[in-house]
Amino acid sequence: MRNLFLTNTLSHRKELFTPVHPGHVGMYVCGPTVYGDAHLGHARPGVTYDVLQKLLRHLGYKVRYVRNITDVGHLENDADAGEDKIAKKARLAQLEPMEVVQHYTFRYHEAMRLLNVAEPSIEPRASGHIIEQIETVKKILAAGYAYESNGSVYFDVQKYNEDYHYGILSGRNLDDTREGTRSLDGQDDKRAPYDFALWKKAEPQHIMKWPSPWGEGFPGWHLECSVMGEKYLGREFDIHGGGMDLMFPHHECEIAQNVASRGTGGVRYWVHNNMITINGQKMGKSLGNFITLPELFSGSHPKLDQAYSPMTIRFFILQAHYRSTLDFSNEALQAAEKGLRKILQAYRDLAALAHAAGLESAVRGSEGSLPQALVYGEYLDSVAPDQADGASDGVRAIFEGVYDALCDDLNTPVAIAALFEAVRLINNAKDGKEPLSRRDLEVLLRLFDDIVSGVLGLRDEAGSDDGSQKVVRGLMEMVLEQRAAAKAARDWARSDAIRDQLKALGITVKDTKNGAEWTLE
Amino acid sequence: MRNLFLTNTLSHRKELFTPVHPGHVGMYVCGPTVYGDAHLGHARPGVTYDVLQKLLRHLGYKVRYVRNITDVGHLENDADAGEDKIAKKARLAQLEPMEVVQHYTFRYHEAMRLLNVAEPSIEPRASGHIIEQIETVKKILAAGYAYESNGSVYFDVQKYNEDYHYGILSGRNLDDTREGTRSLDGQDDKRAPYDFALWKKAEPQHIMKWPSPWGEGFPGWHLECSVMGEKYLGREFDIHGGGMDLMFPHHECEIAQNVASRGTGGVRYWVHNNMITINGQKMGKSLGNFITLPELFSGSHPKLDQAYSPMTIRFFILQAHYRSTLDFSNEALQAAEKGLRKILQAYRDLAALAHAAGLESAVRGSEGSLPQALVYGEYLDSVAPDQADGASDGVRAIFEGVYDALCDDLNTPVAIAALFEAVRLINNAKDGKEPLSRRDLEVLLRLFDDIVSGVLGLRDEAGSDDGSQKVVRGLMEMVLEQRAAAKAARDWARSDAIRDQLKALGITVKDTKNGAEWTLE
Repeated sequence: MRNLFLTNTLSHRKELFTPVHPGHVGMYVCGPTVYGDAHLGHARPGVTYDVLQKLLRHLGYKVRYVRNITDVGHLENDADAGEDKIAKKARLAQLEPMEVVQHYTFRYHEAMRLLNVAEPSIEPRASGHIIEQIETVKKILAAGYAYESNGSVYFDVQKYNEDYHYGILSGRNLDDTREGTRSLDGQDDKRAPYDFALWKKAEPQHIMKWPSPWGEGFPGWHLECSVMGEKYLGREFDIHGGGMDLMFPHHECEIAQNVASRGTGGVRYWVHNNMITINGQKMGKSLGNFITLPELFSGSHPKLDQAYSPMTIRFFILQAHYRSTLDFSNEALQAAEKGLRKILQAYRDLAALAHAAGLESAVRGSEGSLPQALVYGEYLDSVAPDQADGASDGVRAIFEGVYDALCDDLNTPVAIAALFEAVRLINNAKDGKEPLSRRDLEVLLRLFDDIVSGVLGLRDEAGSDDGSQKVVRGLMEMVLEQRAAAKAARDWARSDAIRDQLKALGITVKDTKNGAEWTLE
Repeated sequence: MRNLFLTNTLSHRKELFTPVHPGHVGMYVCGPTVYGDAHLGHARPGVTYDVLQKLLRHLGYKVRYVRNITDVGHLENDADAGEDKIAKKARLAQLEPMEVVQHYTFRYHEAMRLLNVAEPSIEPRASGHIIEQIETVKKILAAGYAYESNGSVYFDVQKYNEDYHYGILSGRNLDDTREGTRSLDGQDDKRAPYDFALWKKAEPQHIMKWPSPWGEGFPGWHLECSVMGEKYLGREFDIHGGGMDLMFPHHECEIAQNVASRGTGGVRYWVHNNMITINGQKMGKSLGNFITLPELFSGSHPKLDQAYSPMTIRFFILQAHYRSTLDFSNEALQAAEKGLRKILQAYRDLAALAHAAGLESAVRGSEGSLPQALVYGEYLDSVAPDQADGASDGVRAIFEGVYDALCDDLNTPVAIAALFEAVRLINNAKDGKEPLSRRDLEVLLRLFDDIVSGVLGLRDEAGSDDGSQKVVRGLMEMVLEQRAAAKAARDWARSDAIRDQLKALGITVKDTKNGAEWTLE
């Protein structure tokens, strides 16, 4: 099995990945708090950890991928004050909180589906694990690292820090933390500002509350991930992912809870993706640059020059390394759109060249017949990478370049650069400049099936509908015959008219020595 | 507001529907136990109650629609013996039970999405409401209608039947029930065979278990619906739907639990859809006629002559009244496919005729831009029915016929028959035999938007993809120009060749006095 290296936030170093149980990977990623539409800040971790888990499967690991839904307990600020985000939205919309949860969970699933993000193995909800969370609070109280105060239970950070290291992940120390914390309403119950809630007392009018040994209340936000991670992945598991903004306090508190309740931090590799900026600015509702995914897909936001397809967004995210900030702009997205089109066109041409050589793509045959994620999963079980032998030096270099990059801390931009080198070879072969051997075609087709379609999860959006692609291709043949006939008859007016009519439909025709070729925008 | 009549299983009569809270409807429907792919037996309630809730919204009600997911506690047989269905599947597949739950929940959502079944307002899970279920068991114990036995808690049917009527829904009496019950392993804890589990003791190796006052265990299957219905819809709500096979014991037990725990049956209208048979036989794994929805959509089952599209399945289901058995056969589905195509073609022609008269469809404009259910929801808020005045007698009769049928116990087959009458009028108008007035076109277009697209939820599947319809239409114009030119030049060989090439693509061309028209299979 190829070696995979991941940057571990715990060590700030790139480490060789070695799983707790050989051949198996347990991965937990913080999912959304479902009180509004998903935005770019959700798309990035969605796509990043989707590619990581697909790469792990492709390398031969059996992966259990847990991505939670936060449907209770996430307060408006991280200092345990303010209203529950979902309860507030429900109050404003005059809905039962679970109606808000359901609506935005479905919308989130729809957005992830369009981004070709595969479903996690398990998608647990905070509200579905109240008993488990209460049990963990009891353990932390019993261990002496928490205290009850007026119906709420808080984690005693100072006490914990005497025995362990609070700040091990974020590198913060208590003094930074104290200064970093504003004093807020409802903090009076706490002994220290940096203590955090494990269980919050619920006011009588509060809807989302459950009975507990400390009275009616609801769990603190940080608790669910400790509890659901242990329940579904065990006392110690391999990878915990999330956005950089969750490193502190959320993940720092998670580690403290894990140590206090089960004697271990519980996670071997902490992986964090960096943030998205918009024209250099942080994204924020107040800044008017807060763009949701449905707005991106439909182009319905003042900051957008046009609609951007889900695949364009996916490719745009993969063109930057997950640990770098990614700056959003119309220019950058339009460039991503062009680059993606080049790769997908080369994929089509490659499939055609391979077909002429008697080779068939493993992926494209099943287009549209099943949800992509399932086709992918079923198809993937049958593959094994590392097979470029017998190919030309150029193709072998590309093949190795792609795998080396992906296994080097998921370096997708470098992998994509290598794929563009393949695009160049494919175009040369198509134009008859540099033919590719049957083996070269075989290796490249396998590479595009496994990596472009499989691991990177890029798909031909126009090709995803049922059969109407076939109709378009058939009609195009008829129209191009007409055009050829007109040219043969030197009826230039007629052939130009056909070209212009096609252009109006977004279809560009190019004449090559193999006859006319067309691309649909 | 139009009067709606529903057959109430409690009274065995058709009753005028009057909600508990004027203008609002609370509706609970039993969802799937997620341990396998959804089949026709899931599609029928999915579609039936989808149409009911869409009709209720269209009539002006604010609907809270709760459809649960059973992810724990459903044993292999209804007598509280045998293994948990999900735990068994997990054991066989060597998966964590929640992986099985997640996989089949996503597959179920995908199937419902393809069937254009709108998401419920709330989709609660049994495993997410353990605390609430434990609280209800305590209430029933306190009321004296349950007993603890060896770590399990059973409902005392005989005791309950002395004070209330067990059998009020199904019409069974205890003796029938006793005879109807086989004696099975693990029944020894029960005082009587017809007693049912509220809480089951879990064996040590059992994974899905939670702490309770009676030891570690899991809730009985019938309990979740009583508990989640009350939590999200209140002590008494309007409609409870489900398949006829759930009437006994599931719904009978639900009523008993409701009465014992909160002093009321809790549901005003019990609505049950009838079963699906296959060539006259009951569907069953043993009979080899068990066809899942993915198999139907892809045609991959020996009993299937072809693939059937989700819309064909939906239309097939709506062509029978929900209270009649529905017999599945290839012939019946192929007939449904033809009927659906006629209606959708007429819808397109109607939109064209209306467009020529300066009228636009409210629905078809937003095609593909948003998930259908959302387009539908947003669009629906803006409509009000009951407006056929000023239309011709024929159109008014159709309009009233459709609404009368739907409001008469959801009589979709009669409503569809009236719609076929509209199809006849539209075809006559198209062929110039009987023109339709602008008002007629307006009323018919509104009827098709509101009922065909809105309430019945029938959509043009070919039209659901993004933009490639536009391309097909554009290319067809070019090809038909060619054909017209060939005909004008009396080049019959050429025009026939074009017709044949189109036929090969599944496109039929028909010459009408308004020029050539085409339909895509």
